[in-house]
Amino acid sequence: MNYANTVAARWRDKTKPPGSLGRLEWIAERMADIQQCDTPRTAPAALLLFAGDHGVHSEGVSPYPQAVTAQMVANIAHGGAASSVLAALYRIDYRVYDVGVAEMLAPHARIESCNLRQGSRNLRVEDAMTATETNAAIAIGQRAVRTFARDATVVLIGEMGIANSTSAAALTAALFKQPADEWVGAGTGLDAAGIAHKAHVVNAALSRRAYGDTLDTLDTLAALGGFEIAAMVGAYLECAAMRKLILVDGFIATVALLVASRMDPAVLDVCIFSHASHERGHRALLQSLGASPLLDLGMRLGEGSGALTAYPLLVQSCALLDSMATFSQAAVTNRA
Amino acid sequence: MNYANTVAARWRDKTKPPGSLGRLEWIAERMADIQQCDTPRTAPAALLLFAGDHGVHSEGVSPYPQAVTAQMVANIAHGGAASSVLAALYRIDYRVYDVGVAEMLAPHARIESCNLRQGSRNLRVEDAMTATETNAAIAIGQRAVRTFARDATVVLIGEMGIANSTSAAALTAALFKQPADEWVGAGTGLDAAGIAHKAHVVNAALSRRAYGDTLDTLDTLAALGGFEIAAMVGAYLECAAMRKLILVDGFIATVALLVASRMDPAVLDVCIFSHASHERGHRALLQSLGASPLLDLGMRLGEGSGALTAYPLLVQSCALLDSMATFSQAAVTNRA
Repeated sequence: MNYANTVAARWRDKTKPPGSLGRLEWIAERMADIQQCDTPRTAPAALLLFAGDHGVHSEGVSPYPQAVTAQMVANIAHGGAASSVLAALYRIDYRVYDVGVAEMLAPHARIESCNLRQGSRNLRVEDAMTATETNAAIAIGQRAVRTFARDATVVLIGEMGIANSTSAAALTAALFKQPADEWVGAGTGLDAAGIAHKAHVVNAALSRRAYGDTLDTLDTLAALGGFEIAAMVGAYLECAAMRKLILVDGFIATVALLVASRMDPAVLDVCIFSHASHERGHRALLQSLGASPLLDLGMRLGEGSGALTAYPLLVQSCALLDSMATFSQAAVTNRA
Repeated sequence: MNYANTVAARWRDKTKPPGSLGRLEWIAERMADIQQCDTPRTAPAALLLFAGDHGVHSEGVSPYPQAVTAQMVANIAHGGAASSVLAALYRIDYRVYDVGVAEMLAPHARIESCNLRQGSRNLRVEDAMTATETNAAIAIGQRAVRTFARDATVVLIGEMGIANSTSAAALTAALFKQPADEWVGAGTGLDAAGIAHKAHVVNAALSRRAYGDTLDTLDTLAALGGFEIAAMVGAYLECAAMRKLILVDGFIATVALLVASRMDPAVLDVCIFSHASHERGHRALLQSLGASPLLDLGMRLGEGSGALTAYPLLVQSCALLDSMATFSQAAVTNRA
């Protein structure tokens, strides 16, 4: 059954000119296709955040100290971060998974402790993770979807990890067999010199091995990724397996999706792309995935914040489809 | 006092990289400037919808019969229209003002009966409204803001009027002293031949008088406008006088704003532009007003639907500013 067509037919009966709700109509059609039903749903939604540190931080690729990863995980859990504020606004429950944070975290109901290593290795000089670690991180992401997001109709997936835009840029460049420059951006706020240095670090990492030729996707993820990125890959793969709608966040999240899509292209069948971020490379990456994001607000924060910002558009679309009157219900004359 | 700067300073203390919330930061700064306070507010919001019919409908410029205006006013009041569904979602109270609907409307608590004439005159062959009618319609819009929207922190202003995109295109072309073509679009869904005919009608209207040379803005509004458009002009002017934030809707609403801004440029100081609609000319019109709309979702429905769709972004911005922790509150290390 083609649920998108069923929803399109429902839209045609609603009291408005055909197509006049633009992408708000597209959203419900896409959701119906993903959720395999003709009344798409946005609640309950679940926000999964994965956190990890990066050995490459020691190369000076971020303006923030590494300790900020752990501090922000605590801040997210306690409700003070952008993602926690937006999640509260939409009553979206969330968990932060410590997959590879360098510092010890105090226990908290919203923090899942599944630390595999206190940060990845420095990807400029050696593989960031072993194959075993990479598979373990993927399994954590898969399990998070099967447990915490089990009943979720919409899954928002985000990350926290100081220096992870360096890892994400390296992964993208390697998977596309391109030099670093197009994929290296300001991250949390590097200046031009900082970006040039970051690109230099990424190019050094890229020259270590023959990515894309002899290395498969999993090896590339291990060599250049990070624990939270691998966990996101696992979460995406599990969403695809369970046919759960993924509301895709920003640059790091989309890079993890690129990795997941190389392992299982079907993952793209369950994605709605929330926004085009301000981070260099995100737009080109989205284009390569055939994505047309809903928002373009110059955001570049991560933590699932872009997905959370776009979430109300899904709610609107479903509410309109549920509650708008049809021409016959409202006794409105349709066009000839 | 520069409240935008105060809010910008508050953002800098929040636990996120500077500027990383993009336009969500800009929104609260802009709202603070408009509302003249450092804690901008989104509730209560009020939705004012103005409805009127257009004599030019008899020229065959719309695929819908004129009766649809009255039918849709009833549908909006009863909660079945897109705007009513979105208003309910955000608990935004609304009223529909019958300023010039052609058909009699059954009484309803959400319909304000202030009908000045059963539709405007055919602007192709004569002035759509007299000066007296135009001023009366403006006064209705002003009074609506002073009464129904008296306590509103955010005012959403929309319209309903079959054939009003013809009037709006004519007004814009006249005020810019340009031929019709750039400003005439599909409206509720004309095909290419329909658009060509509509442009022909608008050009005929434009040739009637020397708009922009001897006619002032009010005369042009009377000659080519409509009752609901004039009422919107009044509502904008009153919002400017009361320094109330206007969340601007789509093409027709922006044309009414262009008219209002010619009467009082200060009206632009209280506006946030919700979206770029799919209607031809809207993007160029927004550009001419120096506007950068928040959303670009291909919508073209009117009724305040674009403003309602963007409203949650204002709520998000204020919630983030209110509730995000600062670096010191959350014990997060800021960048050096």
